[in-house]
Amino acid sequence: MVRLGTVSIVGVGLIGGSIGLALRSRGLASKVVGVGRDARTLEQARVRGVIDQATTDLATGVGEAEVVVVCTPVGRILQDVRGAAEAAPASALVTDAGSTKRQIVESLERYPAASALFVGAHPLAGSERSGSTHARADLFEDRVCVLTPTPRTSRDRLERARSFWSGLGCRLLEMTPVEHDEVLAYTSHLPHALAAALASSIPPEWLELAAGAFRDGTRVAGADTALWTAIFRDNRGPLLKALGTFQDRIAAFKYAVMTDDDDAIRRWWDEGRQRRELFESRQPPNEKVR
Amino acid sequence: MVRLGTVSIVGVGLIGGSIGLALRSRGLASKVVGVGRDARTLEQARVRGVIDQATTDLATGVGEAEVVVVCTPVGRILQDVRGAAEAAPASALVTDAGSTKRQIVESLERYPAASALFVGAHPLAGSERSGSTHARADLFEDRVCVLTPTPRTSRDRLERARSFWSGLGCRLLEMTPVEHDEVLAYTSHLPHALAAALASSIPPEWLELAAGAFRDGTRVAGADTALWTAIFRDNRGPLLKALGTFQDRIAAFKYAVMTDDDDAIRRWWDEGRQRRELFESRQPPNEKVR
Repeated sequence: MVRLGTVSIVGVGLIGGSIGLALRSRGLASKVVGVGRDARTLEQARVRGVIDQATTDLATGVGEAEVVVVCTPVGRILQDVRGAAEAAPASALVTDAGSTKRQIVESLERYPAASALFVGAHPLAGSERSGSTHARADLFEDRVCVLTPTPRTSRDRLERARSFWSGLGCRLLEMTPVEHDEVLAYTSHLPHALAAALASSIPPEWLELAAGAFRDGTRVAGADTALWTAIFRDNRGPLLKALGTFQDRIAAFKYAVMTDDDDAIRRWWDEGRQRRELFESRQPPNEKVR
Repeated sequence: MVRLGTVSIVGVGLIGGSIGLALRSRGLASKVVGVGRDARTLEQARVRGVIDQATTDLATGVGEAEVVVVCTPVGRILQDVRGAAEAAPASALVTDAGSTKRQIVESLERYPAASALFVGAHPLAGSERSGSTHARADLFEDRVCVLTPTPRTSRDRLERARSFWSGLGCRLLEMTPVEHDEVLAYTSHLPHALAAALASSIPPEWLELAAGAFRDGTRVAGADTALWTAIFRDNRGPLLKALGTFQDRIAAFKYAVMTDDDDAIRRWWDEGRQRRELFESRQPPNEKVR
């Protein structure tokens, strides 16, 4: 990627902070401006080298931006993209890192001036931790980033968004916002919901007897409540469909166990095992852990 | 633990192999004999230092044993404990490492001669990997091992079983076989079933868009089919109850999402998050990862 001028990051949490660290460690931008609501945590991020400058004023923060990346929670992205597009130079690219895309992109297209600068994006990286203190410069390396251009997306902005996200280390995929949300309901929102459901199914006094399967299966249940409530609400329809698919799988298992059907239990387990093996075989080498 | 004479391990896989490595690296036994069905893999285990001697004949393998540990799959433990108790010295302790306990212990108590030597045990350690090539000397360090004595259990054997398992690094808990199976249905068997159900819920063509939550939530779906089929069948009743509890949690979530009830979704998520935090706060320091 050609070295950028000013990049403004709106929302300097885990994702925004990791973008700042990646830009600075790779020398990809002449200046990284962080925009947020809490002056104190922004200042901490600046001191830690996550951003070069900090401001709580959106218009000030994006006034000189060549690229604006909106990394606020899903429920705030629409207003932040609109605010950024109004205050940024007319030549700017505005992109985001939201976990859902359909509502954001559809709503934005009602505002052609903002929509003209915007390319929806979702880097598949994160953690159950939040806040820029957990940010890492390598968070995006070899991770998929989905771009969701529509027929109204500017070709120039799409090219620049590809360059921006691949510059951070991402592998790019492109699909429609609707496709993105349907797929992510299964691959991300469902696993998060299951982690929480599993965690709360175990009586507290039995936790001492929970080991590896419980630990791994509930890791993401530690994630932020407001963040995930917004994602679940935003992507209700596809999420309900994914939950239905999963419930059918559980019902099939329950029936096999209830009827003590050795063959059916084996076949059912093997389907999951084979899908997991397929997933592992497709991981980039540095993700092949344990 | 006082240094033991000969310890015989029946079933030299991940668990049996790790017991061998732990005994040898800690100098806890004068000799470790591995008993298995496949001479070739036994010989590999011997060459790798997992065991001192290998045999495919159970009677030969336990003939001089001070302690016999049966680490075969759940469906074979009963016959292997009986066979070992018949061929071992009358003074031997026989223990096991099975993931379920009620059926094994109840069935064994029909054979007083075998039952007199036996103390049921379940070290909560393992992995989705199987086979002694994945064995580790530190697999049991700081892990809970549940002992399931009954009123018929010999006090002498119970003392020796406590000494044996704590010598491997385990923290001991004691409960009845029925309690053990009820708890483990929730803390282990349920999470395994969910991992498989989640894995098979995602269409193969969407796996490229599965990231951390899916990876962690499906890790144990890679475990051995025969092993897990036997556990699920053995512990049917408690497992069905655990599945029911979990299904209720999912149904509550689905209703909250369907009615777009922000408060209900938040509360539901928080219950899982808090349970997960409680779990994390109780982990031994070296388990507090990520």
